[in-house]
Amino acid sequence: MDDTMTRTMDMMMAMPMSGSTMSEMDMMAMQECIEACSACSQACTISADAMAGSDMDGAGRCSSMCSNCADVTMTMMRMMMRPMGMDAMSMTAMLEACIAMCRACMEECMSHASMSETCRLCAQACEACIAACEKLMGSMATA
Amino acid sequence: MDDTMTRTMDMMMAMPMSGSTMSEMDMMAMQECIEACSACSQACTISADAMAGSDMDGAGRCSSMCSNCADVTMTMMRMMMRPMGMDAMSMTAMLEACIAMCRACMEECMSHASMSETCRLCAQACEACIAACEKLMGSMATA
Amino acid sequence: MDDTMTRTMDMMMAMPMSGSTMSEMDMMAMQECIEACSACSQACTISADAMAGSDMDGAGRCSSMCSNCADVTMTMMRMMMRPMGMDAMSMTAMLEACIAMCRACMEECMSHASMSETCRLCAQACEACIAACEKLMGSMATA
Amino acid sequence: MDDTMTRTMDMMMAMPMSGSTMSEMDMMAMQECIEACSACSQACTISADAMAGSDMDGAGRCSSMCSNCADVTMTMMRMMMRPMGMDAMSMTAMLEACIAMCRACMEECMSHASMSETCRLCAQACEACIAACEKLMGSMATA
Repeated sequence: MDDTMTRTMDMMMAMPMSGSTMSEMDMMAMQECIEACSACSQACTISADAMAGSDMDGAGRCSSMCSNCADVTMTMMRMMMRPMGMDAMSMTAMLEACIAMCRACMEECMSHASMSETCRLCAQACEACIAACEKLMGSMATA
Repeated sequence: MDDTMTRTMDMMMAMPMSGSTMSEMDMMAMQECIEACSACSQACTISADAMAGSDMDGAGRCSSMCSNCADVTMTMMRMMMRPMGMDAMSMTAMLEACIAMCRACMEECMSHASMSETCRLCAQACEACIAACEKLMGSMATA
Repeated sequence: MDDTMTRTMDMMMAMPMSGSTMSEMDMMAMQECIEACSACSQACTISADAMAGSDMDGAGRCSSMCSNCADVTMTMMRMMMRPMGMDAMSMTAMLEACIAMCRACMEECMSHASMSETCRLCAQACEACIAACEKLMGSMATA
Repeated sequence: MDDTMTRTMDMMMAMPMSGSTMSEMDMMAMQECIEACSACSQACTISADAMAGSDMDGAGRCSSMCSNCADVTMTMMRMMMRPMGMDAMSMTAMLEACIAMCRACMEECMSHASMSETCRLCAQACEACIAACEKLMGSMATA
């Protein structure tokens, strides 16, 4: 767990209602998901920019998908940072959308990872984000 | 159809690939959904702010939900404005997340619409956004 | 003034503190600026996507600038929709940043407007946004 | 330097044009600024939510300012992640807006840091973001 994550966790823990609504285990899964969404949103933003300027075949479609994925993962991250209004049904639906978006983006980026280091790193970030979202969904289901 | 919507539609129509990938009917449903998401995101942003400053019972939860809904509808809107990377599965999952989020926000706002004009208008915008998302999903399913 | 703008204005006017902190004239300038930022953010999002997929010379740089301008104008718009926390110095600095960003994006888009209808329309939206921001700054200065 | 930052830096370095346009020193200042904006945007999002639900005096204004600061720092962060369209004048104006916004938010949060741990941590994140933005502006000026 890195510095930013520790800071964010300190803040979430300092919120009045956090303790009562979520078990410690859920909080860990959510913290990891926040971190994975943040890293994925950053990777997608950089990759969208690199692909916008690339003349590689299919670069336009890849750039566009990365831009979508950057926005979806950022929104997902922010929803987890707002415990006051947390709603299980919206959260679950958004986690599913985030997984679907990251999967599409990962597959697109993977398809030309051998030609672009940026795409290879973006695909990795998408894969990690999918895993973190699925883990959080699992921890919510058993709650 | 208002001025902004006409302008946006002109731009979408000017994009090289628009004609080939979407029927005219789909384009109309998507334009209406873009407009509904935009109006809902604006209404939620304003309502989140008003509720943050309100001492009404449950105002904090309402503000937080409105902030989430503002981000979700904005991301939804942007995804429709990026035809280059359009992906049916991500789009469908995101439409479902947008509907779930708007429904939760609408119900929360509705519950104190009698005490807050801002909440009443926000609930209306959420309701219109749900209808537009469902219409677009229907038009995509028959495509 | 179109439908969305009327709706947004109704909501802003319904906010408790609006009447006390802003004159009616300021409110009009701000409403026009909100609408111009919204239209510009949409135009830039569409244009960024179109340019990401274009093999036109300089399309990558244009796409990247449009993505920046889409985010800046959206943030500018949201700041105006949050009267609870309005702060004159942040607002003025952000209006200046928005003008600088729109000017850079407009010049870039203008430079290949003859080859791309999307760029031509995006440049127009940037120009209108600059005018609306400058008008609002003027109205704030005389307040 | 933590894990996320290392990953982001790897990606920025993998971009074709990075080497040519920025000295290594600038890249370090920009990476630190990206990281500070990311941490600040997260802190502000959490703090906006906590304050929305607080009945502390002035909590509404604080929540609203935090929401503004969350959007401004996120947009600032994204602009640095798009080297393709980098423009010195827009960048400088946006850094100034980011500094002004973080200063306003920091002062507001600081004023009730003794009563709210979330506000205290948010003020710290704003302060660090101001320092990182100023350092980047300095490094750009000498370039």
